[in-house]
Order: sequence, then structure tokens, then C-alpha cells
Amino acid sequence: MTLSGVQAERDLVHLFWDAGFAVLRAPASGGGTLLPRPDLIAGSQKRQKFFVLEIKTARKDSIYISEEQINGLLEFASRLGFEAFLGVKFKKRRSGFLFLAVPDELERVKNSTNFKVTFAHASQKGRTVGELIGEYKQKRLLE
Amino acid sequence: MTLSGVQAERDLVHLFWDAGFAVLRAPASGGGTLLPRPDLIAGSQKRQKFFVLEIKTARKDSIYISEEQINGLLEFASRLGFEAFLGVKFKKRRSGFLFLAVPDELERVKNSTNFKVTFAHASQKGRTVGELIGEYKQKRLLE
Repeated sequence: MTLSGVQAERDLVHLFWDAGFAVLRAPASGGGTLLPRPDLIAGSQKRQKFFVLEIKTARKDSIYISEEQINGLLEFASRLGFEAFLGVKFKKRRSGFLFLAVPDELERVKNSTNFKVTFAHASQKGRTVGELIGEYKQKRLLE
Repeated sequence: MTLSGVQAERDLVHLFWDAGFAVLRAPASGGGTLLPRPDLIAGSQKRQKFFVLEIKTARKDSIYISEEQINGLLEFASRLGFEAFLGVKFKKRRSGFLFLAVPDELERVKNSTNFKVTFAHASQKGRTVGELIGEYKQKRLLE
């Protein structure tokens, strides 16, 4: 992950914490195990919102994710009983994070089992962190 | 943390995973934030068991934990609605991890707000990982 990607993820951690969530980032490396793990876990009993999150920052207008990574995220989420979301950020567009439900709101790569998210799709279908948390409605991109 | 401490924590991660839990280790460093975070989160919707865990490995027969660290763990656990446990391992005794409920099953350091756990106390009050998970009753230490 790039430095700005790391910083964006840290900012996200603080947003969750400030909204009353418990939030934990996974270590950058696998921590010596090959078990599936999300980038972030964030949950709030008070709000009854519990998420496992995969976070991707992209320079280009498309983000690709392997089926294996999505399956790992879903297995992890299912064990916990948490909802799985992909948070995407398009640097060129200066977008904030946009969150898509996994796997229903992802696009499939043509003739492949892998997934992708384009900026256009995320702008249309994605929710902001504020909407995910349920705190407030942010003005959306492209409106 | 020592190398053997790291390995012990990894083994614990695998024990949880193999028992059907989702389990996430926190990064070794703070990950650029000063927010409270446990060493491990482990949860299973199927078993209806959800834990935040602080993990300590000690060479000696006593383990000390600051009040601040315990408060951080409790704040994190309370936000998630998970149970907080301290997992202690005494290397000299070749003990497995023993888990104590936080803060009720910890001892207080005399004339201090800090906490401690002795090997004798942990052997008497602690539960094994199998007992924590609820999978089986292990033969206890000192029996």
C-alpha cells in the first residue's frame, strides 16, 4: 500500500472511533499466518452495526479484487456474523471512501471469476463512510 | 514481545480459527494511531462467543498490567459488546495460555491502581483456551 493509502486508512480508523465504534486494523503483513483476514473490523453495539472491511485505494478508475480475496472476506464475516464491505478510494478523483456490499454490489470481470469496481459504479452504488455508519447523509459525489 | 511470545500468539490464532472462530491479530506497532486496541479479536456467531483479548507471556511468575491498558481494553470491548479477557502464559512453568475475565478476575497491585496476575492465581482461576472456546474441558494445571 502507498503512504497516502496508509494515511487514508488511518483517517478511516479515526472516523470510526470518533463515531463510537471499536475499530481494529489488521497488520500490514500476514502476521505469519495465511488465514483470511479483513483490513479492518469496526463495530458498535450501540448502533448495532458490525462490519468487516476490505480497503482499496487506486490511482486508476478501476479496482480489481480476486475471487479468493472476496471469499476470504466472506468466510471471515460469516464466522463473526458481521457485514462485509469493500471500501474504495480513487485518488485521481479525490474521492473519499465509497463502500460497496460484498459480493452483491461488486461488478464481475468479464469471462473471469474475479471482481472489479469502477469509479462510475462506486459513485452510483457506493455509500460514504457517514452513510455506512448511519450517522449522517453526506453530499454524494457526482450529484 | 519475544519470538516465542509471537509464536505462542500465532498458535492461539490457529486454535481459534480451527474451532470456527474469526480471529484478527492487532499489528505489533500501534499502526500510527494511539487508540486503544486489543491484541486479538476472536468471535463466533455460531458459538455465540465474542472476545477481545490481551495476551501476555512472562518469564517470571507475575505479570503486571497498567490500569490504562485495562481501561483501553474495556472501552474497546464495551463498544463492540464483546467480553474482555487477559490471556497469560508463564514460560518457566511451560503453561499453556490461561484466560482471566477483565477486570473481575485480575488481582490488584497493593497500593496501586495497576493489575497483576500471578501463576498461582492464574492456575486457580484461569480457563484454558478450550474452556474459553467452550469446546472441551482440558486437564487443568496443578490438578
